[in-house]
Amino acid sequence: MDRSKFKFKTEIRVRNYEVDWQGIVHNAVYLLYFETGRIEYFRALGLRIDLESIKHGNRMVLVRNEINYRAPAKFDDLLDVHTRISAIRNTSYVMEGLLLVHRSDKLIGENVAVHVWLDPTTDRPKTISDTFRRAVQQFEGDSVVIEWPTYLA
Amino acid sequence: MDRSKFKFKTEIRVRNYEVDWQGIVHNAVYLLYFETGRIEYFRALGLRIDLESIKHGNRMVLVRNEINYRAPAKFDDLLDVHTRISAIRNTSYVMEGLLLVHRSDKLIGENVAVHVWLDPTTDRPKTISDTFRRAVQQFEGDSVVIEWPTYLA
Amino acid sequence: MDRSKFKFKTEIRVRNYEVDWQGIVHNAVYLLYFETGRIEYFRALGLRIDLESIKHGNRMVLVRNEINYRAPAKFDDLLDVHTRISAIRNTSYVMEGLLLVHRSDKLIGENVAVHVWLDPTTDRPKTISDTFRRAVQQFEGDSVVIEWPTYLA
Amino acid sequence: MDRSKFKFKTEIRVRNYEVDWQGIVHNAVYLLYFETGRIEYFRALGLRIDLESIKHGNRMVLVRNEINYRAPAKFDDLLDVHTRISAIRNTSYVMEGLLLVHRSDKLIGENVAVHVWLDPTTDRPKTISDTFRRAVQQFEGDSVVIEWPTYLA
Repeated sequence: MDRSKFKFKTEIRVRNYEVDWQGIVHNAVYLLYFETGRIEYFRALGLRIDLESIKHGNRMVLVRNEINYRAPAKFDDLLDVHTRISAIRNTSYVMEGLLLVHRSDKLIGENVAVHVWLDPTTDRPKTISDTFRRAVQQFEGDSVVIEWPTYLA
Repeated sequence: MDRSKFKFKTEIRVRNYEVDWQGIVHNAVYLLYFETGRIEYFRALGLRIDLESIKHGNRMVLVRNEINYRAPAKFDDLLDVHTRISAIRNTSYVMEGLLLVHRSDKLIGENVAVHVWLDPTTDRPKTISDTFRRAVQQFEGDSVVIEWPTYLA
Repeated sequence: MDRSKFKFKTEIRVRNYEVDWQGIVHNAVYLLYFETGRIEYFRALGLRIDLESIKHGNRMVLVRNEINYRAPAKFDDLLDVHTRISAIRNTSYVMEGLLLVHRSDKLIGENVAVHVWLDPTTDRPKTISDTFRRAVQQFEGDSVVIEWPTYLA
Repeated sequence: MDRSKFKFKTEIRVRNYEVDWQGIVHNAVYLLYFETGRIEYFRALGLRIDLESIKHGNRMVLVRNEINYRAPAKFDDLLDVHTRISAIRNTSYVMEGLLLVHRSDKLIGENVAVHVWLDPTTDRPKTISDTFRRAVQQFEGDSVVIEWPTYLA
């Protein structure tokens, strides 16, 4: 992944209860770190993705996760979680995450997470709102690929 | 994934503390289920992958995880975790996992997990042992693709 | 604790992801096991303690936990979780838990968990329902101490 | 608990994956927060309590935990974890924890955690070292009750 494309970053410190019997962060915990990155990303953009947003007719579900483990994170490591949206299609969007040791070039892991918007009443895929597309485009600029609904073309 | 290729299966019941605020199993927990499947798989084949095996010069690290989330698992669901090794290369092997609601065709998720053997003293990739290859081939038969080291060719 | 007073038991197997870097179950995980015991206890008695019960005006909150750690549980141990209600007062009830290695006398831990009933709208303590008292008394018999509301005296 | 007796404090922020289906921090997670407080306490005092210390003949095990839940912590809350040692006896010591919303008087919970020193080879209780007693007394002053071994009396 090209780190220069990431405009958002948050920090996370490895807690003692997140390391396993080998003294390193368990493979499932990295997913939690990337998720924390995504939540902070949406907060920074002013987009609600929680229970409130469900009441307003938007439900986002994670449909695919890819993680490359490059090096183990250890107890007390301070990590930088870089997060971005790389693409928005009709009903889905793709988020990328980069996990690095804070202020170093040491790469811990990479993540691609694909989400789909659902209608909470029918549970069927739903066109992503223009509000969401615009907020992401304004923040990401040229680094995000957005397919706009045809009625806007 | 082709379910008929899976020869090993274990069961897991969703525990109350594994569901999130939406009442469904958190996305990171499915990784734990697939991991449980792999551990039971190795136990069934009589292969040690724990601290003991490290003392004997073998350390297996997870380098890549892919998960497709097909449907949410819920509190108290009994799940079948199907596990197999699909390929063994020189220093790496690929494991696949299928998660289904017990005795039904309801697919919860799919997993591909790539592992590399390391030498515990140098932390560099190491040729997978013949013992490991033979045990897997005997169990999996034609459904596993194994590249044998050239000295055996 | 007097094991003969426990009439309910459920089983739980230690999972690989519940052991820490010392190879033993982490101290916080025992709380999850005791909680599983309580959930199964209520299910066996036909009492709802979930989101549904909140809609019907009952919310139970945990206000105190005591745990004695007697011996560590280890990966793959099959454990018996014994659970009972030892006392019901006006707005609170006390649950006890015993964790033992399955079909042995090896004691892993003991738990006392105090709960309070709240009115979901005011968040203030609320008299425990007669339905709850009767169901528990019928199951526990003489081993539970129940203070009945004075209007029933 | 008397907050004025606590001389050590660390901060912890509630993470999204630590809240349960009710939107509040799960009862077992508070134990993790208090544990984080204890680890930071020992680090501040320059005392090793990890794998290294075991090699030097000291193993500390948690034998009892008490938690009072006063109010729920919620996602994104910044919490102050106050930690102290209140007593050191021959082979055991008692730690106390106070969890409050950062820079407020809002009490989330209280913890008492009793530990015993073990000899790693025999697993039997062992007199706590003078180094440990002195470091704690120097930090805590009059607020800790220390029973010194008779040979020092």
